[in-house]
Amino acid sequence: MAQNTAEKTPVTMLGLGAMGTALARAWLAAGHPLTVWNRNPARAEALAAEGAEVADTVAEAVAANTLIVVCLLDDDSVEEVLGGADLADRDVVNLTTGTPAQARARAGWARERGARYLDGGIMAVPPMIGVPEAGGYVFYSGSRELFERHQETLSVPVGTDYVGEDAGFAALHDVALLSAMYGMFAGAAHAFALIRKEDIDPTALAPLLADWLVAMAPAVHKTAEQLRSGDYTKGVVSNLAMQVAGTPTFLSTAEQQGVSPELLSPYFALMRRRLAEGSGEEDLTGVIDLLVNDRA
Amino acid sequence: MAQNTAEKTPVTMLGLGAMGTALARAWLAAGHPLTVWNRNPARAEALAAEGAEVADTVAEAVAANTLIVVCLLDDDSVEEVLGGADLADRDVVNLTTGTPAQARARAGWARERGARYLDGGIMAVPPMIGVPEAGGYVFYSGSRELFERHQETLSVPVGTDYVGEDAGFAALHDVALLSAMYGMFAGAAHAFALIRKEDIDPTALAPLLADWLVAMAPAVHKTAEQLRSGDYTKGVVSNLAMQVAGTPTFLSTAEQQGVSPELLSPYFALMRRRLAEGSGEEDLTGVIDLLVNDRA
Ligand SMILES: NC(=O)c1ccc[n+]([C@@H]2O[C@H](COP(=O)([O-])OP(=O)(O)OC[C@H]3O[C@@H](n4cnc5c(N)ncnc54)[C@H](OP(=O)(O)O)[C@@H]3O)[C@@H](O)[C@H]2O)c1
Ligand SMILES: NC(=O)c1ccc[n+]([C@@H]2O[C@H](COP(=O)([O-])OP(=O)(O)OC[C@H]3O[C@@H](n4cnc5c(N)ncnc54)[C@H](OP(=O)(O)O)[C@@H]3O)[C@@H](O)[C@H]2O)c1
Repeated sequence: MAQNTAEKTPVTMLGLGAMGTALARAWLAAGHPLTVWNRNPARAEALAAEGAEVADTVAEAVAANTLIVVCLLDDDSVEEVLGGADLADRDVVNLTTGTPAQARARAGWARERGARYLDGGIMAVPPMIGVPEAGGYVFYSGSRELFERHQETLSVPVGTDYVGEDAGFAALHDVALLSAMYGMFAGAAHAFALIRKEDIDPTALAPLLADWLVAMAPAVHKTAEQLRSGDYTKGVVSNLAMQVAGTPTFLSTAEQQGVSPELLSPYFALMRRRLAEGSGEEDLTGVIDLLVNDRA
Repeated sequence: MAQNTAEKTPVTMLGLGAMGTALARAWLAAGHPLTVWNRNPARAEALAAEGAEVADTVAEAVAANTLIVVCLLDDDSVEEVLGGADLADRDVVNLTTGTPAQARARAGWARERGARYLDGGIMAVPPMIGVPEAGGYVFYSGSRELFERHQETLSVPVGTDYVGEDAGFAALHDVALLSAMYGMFAGAAHAFALIRKEDIDPTALAPLLADWLVAMAPAVHKTAEQLRSGDYTKGVVSNLAMQVAGTPTFLSTAEQQGVSPELLSPYFALMRRRLAEGSGEEDLTGVIDLLVNDRA
């Protein structure tokens, strides 16, 4: 396929780990002129063979193009790599995972250096990059102008979702979704532990478990509606009192199967606390309020 | 629609709570002769108007038909209702939620009384009963012969899935799936808590969260394969060492947002424990082994 590279936005990519390499490769494949830099230069060799310019220094890489995409290990490595760079008039897109506070601080740091700043949180693993049907995407937040200017280029390796001017929002969305995923994995771990000593094939449980989780995931829509309205009793099917009454069955079953309840009991404890506050007619939504410290 | 009730298996239903009533109504609607009993007789009135026979006593209800479906609050209420009943030659299908041990004990108890026994775990809420497209179903375990004899009748209100001769397996599957669901709800609660103080509409987060959980749920298939093979390094995308390295971002974000980490930290603690055992190259699957007490 002939590609007109002249029309494509040139990209500088800092960081060629598993993720940076996957992103770089997608831009190269789409015909974007690409300049790369990595601390360990050996990781740039394959990309050079595929057509990337390899910069010897960070300064050279940053000087090469306006659009600078950063995908390093963590915020400390961003400081180490870009702390001394001249970022004046650069469009910095930082895809390094971090906290909302780190992203907000980076946005200020970039502004002080005369750069525009967009923060990103990657909802994909490297094998999903360059594979649109895999459904991966990146949350972006910070400069809307910068996002709009580069949306087409940013959409090349993976989907995009702009979530707000607050530079911390991409990280916040990223962490929120991954936190929920870890909760789901914890629940699944408990489920697999329950059958560990039985003559039940885990690959027979898996499809039941996957289908059930997929069927129950949309419950978050009702939770969100309840949070928005503040009315946690709306649309309740099994109220908190009923659900708390059911918890001894879960805990006894764990005990019978020799399984530690440590991944379930904190949630049940919050359900009981909420019930004790007189919220038996509510859904489980009130648990969320108990997690949030009002003084923070 | 004309229905030939003569061909349909007559059913006795003990317990007309929210669930028992929904089941009873589905059998009535499908033309099954139905005899009902409930401790509080007022709950039988609507069904009587729809064509059910109302038994005055448990003994009368049990004598009326061979197939006895029980849907009471808990195992204690089953004892209270059926402790003195003559169950000789009855087909007892117990849909009351309980632990695997309670189901196994009930199977023995029924056998001693000359009854056949099938235990059930209902994966549905009452509004899903009689609505096949809602996807609800009941796990059954215990007598395979009894299941096969009544499968057609049992399939009327909601789908069926027979999971084994061990009477405890239906309850075990039920508890495993619901436990996993509570883990997912706990994760989602943490996610909603993270945005509680931000100008982010929870109903904007919900579709992202639902889609992400749906996309990640199939990860349980790989977990199951790893459990079966005993090789927890097969097909790893993000290994345990990488994932543990990422946990401080989740915990710092929670702290920044004033959110208690109590629903996430137990899982992270197990991830760290497994890593400390030298399993950094593995997937998260090893956490499951840490949950199971080898002496139990
Ligand atoms: N991989 C994933 O599944 C995934 C998914 C979502 C988000 N992310 C995020 O993407 C970012 C990169 O991840 P990755 O998977 O590519 O990680 P990786 O394979 O471990 O690569 C880390 C990269 O950071 C560089 N680096 C680390 N410390 C440095 C320092 N002090 N100075 C200069 N360079 C340094 C490494 O350079 P050397 O080659 O010289 O060591 C390498 O380029 C991370 O923030 C990660 O959280 C990854
Ligand atoms: N509802 C759901 O979403 C759902 C989902 C899955 C499984 N289940 C299971 O289905 C079963 C029934 O649930 P449900 O929602 O129908 O509950 P429910 O509406 O609270 O009804 C409880 C039933 O048990 C009877 N009962 C309680 N204690 C009794 C006793 N000591 N002696 C005689 N009868 C007694 C009640 O009779 P009275 O009317 O006389 O009080 C009523 O018929 C439970 O095991 C539940 O876990 C329910």
